[in-house]
Amino acid sequence: MTRIVALDTFDVRFPTSRQLDGSDAMNPDPDYSAAYVTLRTDDPSGLAGHGLVFTIGRGNDVQTAALQALSHLVVGREVDVVVNDLGGFARSLADDSQLRWLGPEKGVMHMAIGAVINAAWDLAARRAGKPVWRLIAEMTPEQIVGLIDFRYLTDALTPDEALALLRAAEPDRAARTALLLEQGYPAYTTSPGWLGYPDEKLARLAREAVADGFRTIKIKVGLSVEDDVRRCRIAREAIGPGIALAVDANQRWDVDDAIAWMRRLASFDLAWIEEPTSPDDVLGHAAIRRGIAPVPVSTGEHTHNRVMFKQLLQAGAVDLIQIDAARVGGVNENLAILLLAAKFGVRVFPHAGGVGLCELVQHLAMADFIAISGRMDDRAIEYVDHLHEHFVDPVRIREGRYLAPMSPGFSAEMYEESVREHLFPDGPVWREEREALPVSSGE
Amino acid sequence: MTRIVALDTFDVRFPTSRQLDGSDAMNPDPDYSAAYVTLRTDDPSGLAGHGLVFTIGRGNDVQTAALQALSHLVVGREVDVVVNDLGGFARSLADDSQLRWLGPEKGVMHMAIGAVINAAWDLAARRAGKPVWRLIAEMTPEQIVGLIDFRYLTDALTPDEALALLRAAEPDRAARTALLLEQGYPAYTTSPGWLGYPDEKLARLAREAVADGFRTIKIKVGLSVEDDVRRCRIAREAIGPGIALAVDANQRWDVDDAIAWMRRLASFDLAWIEEPTSPDDVLGHAAIRRGIAPVPVSTGEHTHNRVMFKQLLQAGAVDLIQIDAARVGGVNENLAILLLAAKFGVRVFPHAGGVGLCELVQHLAMADFIAISGRMDDRAIEYVDHLHEHFVDPVRIREGRYLAPMSPGFSAEMYEESVREHLFPDGPVWREEREALPVSSGE
Repeated sequence: MTRIVALDTFDVRFPTSRQLDGSDAMNPDPDYSAAYVTLRTDDPSGLAGHGLVFTIGRGNDVQTAALQALSHLVVGREVDVVVNDLGGFARSLADDSQLRWLGPEKGVMHMAIGAVINAAWDLAARRAGKPVWRLIAEMTPEQIVGLIDFRYLTDALTPDEALALLRAAEPDRAARTALLLEQGYPAYTTSPGWLGYPDEKLARLAREAVADGFRTIKIKVGLSVEDDVRRCRIAREAIGPGIALAVDANQRWDVDDAIAWMRRLASFDLAWIEEPTSPDDVLGHAAIRRGIAPVPVSTGEHTHNRVMFKQLLQAGAVDLIQIDAARVGGVNENLAILLLAAKFGVRVFPHAGGVGLCELVQHLAMADFIAISGRMDDRAIEYVDHLHEHFVDPVRIREGRYLAPMSPGFSAEMYEESVREHLFPDGPVWREEREALPVSSGE
Repeated sequence: MTRIVALDTFDVRFPTSRQLDGSDAMNPDPDYSAAYVTLRTDDPSGLAGHGLVFTIGRGNDVQTAALQALSHLVVGREVDVVVNDLGGFARSLADDSQLRWLGPEKGVMHMAIGAVINAAWDLAARRAGKPVWRLIAEMTPEQIVGLIDFRYLTDALTPDEALALLRAAEPDRAARTALLLEQGYPAYTTSPGWLGYPDEKLARLAREAVADGFRTIKIKVGLSVEDDVRRCRIAREAIGPGIALAVDANQRWDVDDAIAWMRRLASFDLAWIEEPTSPDDVLGHAAIRRGIAPVPVSTGEHTHNRVMFKQLLQAGAVDLIQIDAARVGGVNENLAILLLAAKFGVRVFPHAGGVGLCELVQHLAMADFIAISGRMDDRAIEYVDHLHEHFVDPVRIREGRYLAPMSPGFSAEMYEESVREHLFPDGPVWREEREALPVSSGE
């Protein structure tokens, strides 16, 4: 009888603030980081499950402490019981009544719960010998419904409605699986558009993105409207009229500011404005959407749970949503969100980048294509060319498309050496960083 | 020049799950806890500021780690600079771009920020020789507006509108201060109504509450509708028709369940139904309110920031709100919420109980009465008779009213001995708890 015998955590940080990769209007100097978790088992083969929370530096230790606080709910469990009832496992983490007070279902504690749930999915998929996208895509509609916590959702989506959606998508699963394996899933790229980049670099990277096969690019906006007008013009000229151009304000504006600012950018035929305001502001997004129509509005990478996504859809606040693999309560809650999006007919453009987010979220988009929405032609997964070299099963991009991962698991495993090198604060990379600093008289 | 020289944290827990005090539909066995923080200064008098996050047990260590993660933003600062610009201080904590990723403005990290801001208010009030309620009530309208982060609020409340509200309340401040000092502020009590209590105890405590002068009592509901009908009847019979009876479901229901359940309880002339569903569900509360009118709907103790309160008010989702002193970003964000409530004409019934929440939130309600809403006759502060003995300046209740605290500070300081005794896991109280447990073969 195989059991989970340990929940190991690692505070892993990459000193990305040395460059301006990843800079945007709200996050000027991120150190891309992962609070990384491994569920070890006593299986003699070394079977384990891996998950992570992405952060941008400070606070990654708090996130790691939150992962550790879940040990008592995980260590000692039978692997078969966990992997055969991933719905029950997920609910048991979210329902710890004392930990629930720290959210509920939001912030540090909820992200930790999501990472441990994702690690259990990695374990389950390894045990099944399949990548996670295929594990989901081969479940029955009833099994998928059984994964989901419908609490607080039933005014928008009932289990029966979810079942009907999944059954409607069932007949063509095989054909779509073949299509996915043949063509991959569309990607879009944010690499050209970081705020810290000079105009010439923006233009060059935008042209390269199109040459590489991307059909959508995204640039950051929100610090100066004059700069944004210029940068949108440069990007639009570089990619031409046939490529989609999206912009991302990273929560920079109040409602009225967003409307005024976006009217200045409306002439660039934008694919969407992402995160125009607070991720919590459902009614604000709805007001912005009315104010700047027909420019599409989007949010989601910071939307903290299914209840918030439900409201964004109920309020008609968004034209599309971003999901994030490591913000909400793991695969299970993301499946609830994908089902909500399918019911409301809203497209999904998964958020990625960071550390391992591309590796994780591709599985969810691909499972959605096969088993839920049945669509990939009108959507795309974000792609950023960062830090993939630290992952054992990194994403593979060809001609602007994600190729389906084929290895068993959730593609979340990092190389042990990468983890060891980047441990904070005492791994060799961070010791070097400190030695390179000038000696300070204070602190 | 006096500086803050340390941010000390303490994981303090009380083994309250031994009794059923504090039990409700979602929280069956809380161990009331505080992640307690002290800002020490180098002032020879021993000047310090105290704050806390209330939790219900597990995860208090994560909350303590989050407090610790704020040290770099606090230690080394000049006390005069902090206390003379508490608005700037609060913003500097909320705006740390890397820590912001862990929320933003929600959950573990935001509660930690709130506690440190509250500790700075304690420090400022001690320095000024005034209780916090008076410190606020004696600020000019312009100073109060300067405390508030209006980001994401301006579609509902602008700085100019806030200033107008504050100026309108200014002329009668002195008269209201005198009234407060003479009469105290109304309290209501939840002590009779915990779910774990037998019917006889409910009836007895309800009668005692009325005899003690309380004009409103609240009972917990949500586990069994038949039980709730019986318990509402018992409570109503015990208190008679002239006393207000509120019920609290602690987030137990989906929208349709809440409507059906509350229709069964409508005949008891309820003062409000509190937390009928997810605290994140603004639109759900609005639907419930429409579905059970005229029973008033309320929420707020888990509402994580001003953006959520803004939407509850914009959507007409609530008849009244609870504020909590230790959930949002400290005094500053609560002042924003109180101003929003005043603008929308919604009554405030502050949430209290737990550890130190009564001690803290009374200051906010009293400042609101004097400087913002000008009302206390149509509202009340929750009161639970728990754990006050651990506080140096505990609340004083007389004839169902909170007497205004008179000592300088925020009433947040705990006795050093209480902290030491209840340190988790190695304080004497917890060592005793462990020794009293039967020896387990596992774990």
